[in-house]
Amino acid sequence: MSDQDRVNGSTAPGSGEILQLLLDGRARTKADLVHLTGLARSTVSSRVDALLASGLAVPAGEAASTGGRPPARIAFNPRAGAIVAVDLGASHGTVALADLSGSILLTSTHPLDIAAGPVEVLDRVVAEAAVLLEHDSVRDIPLVGVGIGVPGPVEHSTGRPYNPPIMPGWDRFDVPGYVQRTFDVPVLVDNDVNILALGEHALSYPDARDLVFVKVATGIGAGIIAGGQLQRGAQGSAGDMGHVRVPYSPDSSPAAKEDRDLEALASGTAIAATLRECGQATESSADVVALIRAGNAAAIEATRQAGRDVGEVLASMVNLLNPSVIILGGSIGRAGEHLLAGVREVVYRRSITLATQHLAIVQTQGGERAAVLGAAIMVTRDVLAPANVDARLSAARR
Amino acid sequence: MSDQDRVNGSTAPGSGEILQLLLDGRARTKADLVHLTGLARSTVSSRVDALLASGLAVPAGEAASTGGRPPARIAFNPRAGAIVAVDLGASHGTVALADLSGSILLTSTHPLDIAAGPVEVLDRVVAEAAVLLEHDSVRDIPLVGVGIGVPGPVEHSTGRPYNPPIMPGWDRFDVPGYVQRTFDVPVLVDNDVNILALGEHALSYPDARDLVFVKVATGIGAGIIAGGQLQRGAQGSAGDMGHVRVPYSPDSSPAAKEDRDLEALASGTAIAATLRECGQATESSADVVALIRAGNAAAIEATRQAGRDVGEVLASMVNLLNPSVIILGGSIGRAGEHLLAGVREVVYRRSITLATQHLAIVQTQGGERAAVLGAAIMVTRDVLAPANVDARLSAARR
Repeated sequence: MSDQDRVNGSTAPGSGEILQLLLDGRARTKADLVHLTGLARSTVSSRVDALLASGLAVPAGEAASTGGRPPARIAFNPRAGAIVAVDLGASHGTVALADLSGSILLTSTHPLDIAAGPVEVLDRVVAEAAVLLEHDSVRDIPLVGVGIGVPGPVEHSTGRPYNPPIMPGWDRFDVPGYVQRTFDVPVLVDNDVNILALGEHALSYPDARDLVFVKVATGIGAGIIAGGQLQRGAQGSAGDMGHVRVPYSPDSSPAAKEDRDLEALASGTAIAATLRECGQATESSADVVALIRAGNAAAIEATRQAGRDVGEVLASMVNLLNPSVIILGGSIGRAGEHLLAGVREVVYRRSITLATQHLAIVQTQGGERAAVLGAAIMVTRDVLAPANVDARLSAARR
Repeated sequence: MSDQDRVNGSTAPGSGEILQLLLDGRARTKADLVHLTGLARSTVSSRVDALLASGLAVPAGEAASTGGRPPARIAFNPRAGAIVAVDLGASHGTVALADLSGSILLTSTHPLDIAAGPVEVLDRVVAEAAVLLEHDSVRDIPLVGVGIGVPGPVEHSTGRPYNPPIMPGWDRFDVPGYVQRTFDVPVLVDNDVNILALGEHALSYPDARDLVFVKVATGIGAGIIAGGQLQRGAQGSAGDMGHVRVPYSPDSSPAAKEDRDLEALASGTAIAATLRECGQATESSADVVALIRAGNAAAIEATRQAGRDVGEVLASMVNLLNPSVIILGGSIGRAGEHLLAGVREVVYRRSITLATQHLAIVQTQGGERAAVLGAAIMVTRDVLAPANVDARLSAARR
């Protein structure tokens, strides 16, 4: 909210800013809130009353008395709203329900073909979400937002996929508008690597201000957190690592002499093609993962080489962004430590000392849980933003 | 200031947060500030009194009366403090005085050899600053901070240069400690490309949230603004573009087959070496610039080729960060449009459509002024941060 908005729209810090103070989970008295904010006691009282009426805050026992009636305390109520958090992959979908603190309450994963197009896929997602919302444990919690991660580029401001290569029929489809036919709440959409970066950050490295999540699967992409913020760039296409050219190196894949986009060298699709040339019947990323798990030496070496190629691009990112953590995920990134070994080999050799001396390069631990958690966090940050809380409370009063 | 600090250290929003509201330059009454903040009138009064006593705010006439005595207005006073803003290059130094709004009041530029070491250089800087501070127009303004840009990597948290290649004797030298022997105020140090990025952003592209400034001179470096914030990374080494390897390309310099760090291909030093191989007597960046200015065809072509090599790395940055503006500066970047032409040729051909369709690639307009402005802005953001304002006011009361 700009200064000017405040002057025109009338107001001093509203209930939304009081709620921010409670998001750490501690219970506080009205006197605590007066002390913290400097607002007049009457102002704090009316703000707190609005939060209590909305259910966003709840009574939380009494503080120690200093004589007389002990003062009542209030606390943030994460169960005041439910979020549908969705992670869509090429061949599966996970639908989860989270509360306003981002805790995942219920989850359901099913096979699902993203190439079936947005109507069929989103109908399925909406139906799954409706089933979860009927569950006894959550039936009384109102739905306040939907977050969806998809395996392709998204114009985040509109929620529309933008030329997504493995999502036929989804190009510029109005995902929020379609979902809102059923659930009339804010619907946020982002690409899967961005929500994985948010989820991994929250799960495993909440104190890191500079973190890169890299997904290596059918394609390759990165989610970049710099200065504590997810970076989407001017048009929302930041993190497009798959289209970065790989520096030529004596270590590079043979393919590097012809086509040097990282995705054409080191994705699951590219590894499968390399293995086909060696006589394996690998059609896809999934076939590559199966061979790695079976201990196939050619598949393991090809994956390690892919790691070196990914490492060439990550070495540049380390010079440019100086992250403290790089996390490798995606089906190829999770299949054993072969990709990780190749990445480490190149990055630790090539990047400058200052930038690598405290750099951790690790495999994802979060998996599916990180994805839906990231989708939930994307939505909680939006619905709990002070201006949005104030807008909802004032709409409820009308 | 964390929530916990506030609880322990006592306090509600202080004078610093009131001052933030005045930084837009508009004059306001106490009633305006009560309305904007929701603070009690008595609280606003005491905060405003402290700002008036410190000189950070001044009376600014009267608002229109609604009957009775018209209410007094107050405004931010940028002349409440002076900042010494310094830009050190390899062979020159600029010392400027700025006010708290970042306006440059006085400037002085001199030849200066950074390789003479920190004591000789900083003694000179301090002496120049002392002369400027005695000038009639600024003599009454108290010095509140010093900002220094240097041509090499800096550990920003301590202000110490870190293995700077062209700054012999400066490695890990305590620049703030040395300057504070004369000026007992906060001293902030950063590398020159970061302060140029801040200065160019403020001067020419204040609305851009994602901007990259690239300096091509004796060396090569970048200052990266992403999501509206200058990004320094986990150890402060972000933007080290000179050590990024250049993807091999049929267009690359002949040198690319042996040594592919960008700085070894496309810096002024590298261009001078290339021209020496063609029989020119070029020893340095300055010689290259002189040849370009004289219209030498070999120098122009070598610079354009350097632009293509810089463009290869910038194309990767465009994929990774999706900036809306790239600004080329440094002595080679400013010498005609040859570097610019080479960069544009590669970036517009190689980067993905979504990221380049609204991307501006331009030459710096700011020059020396952008550098000292950036150094001044680095300091104003620090000294006007609410917690620092409050600390100074409470120290002044003791």
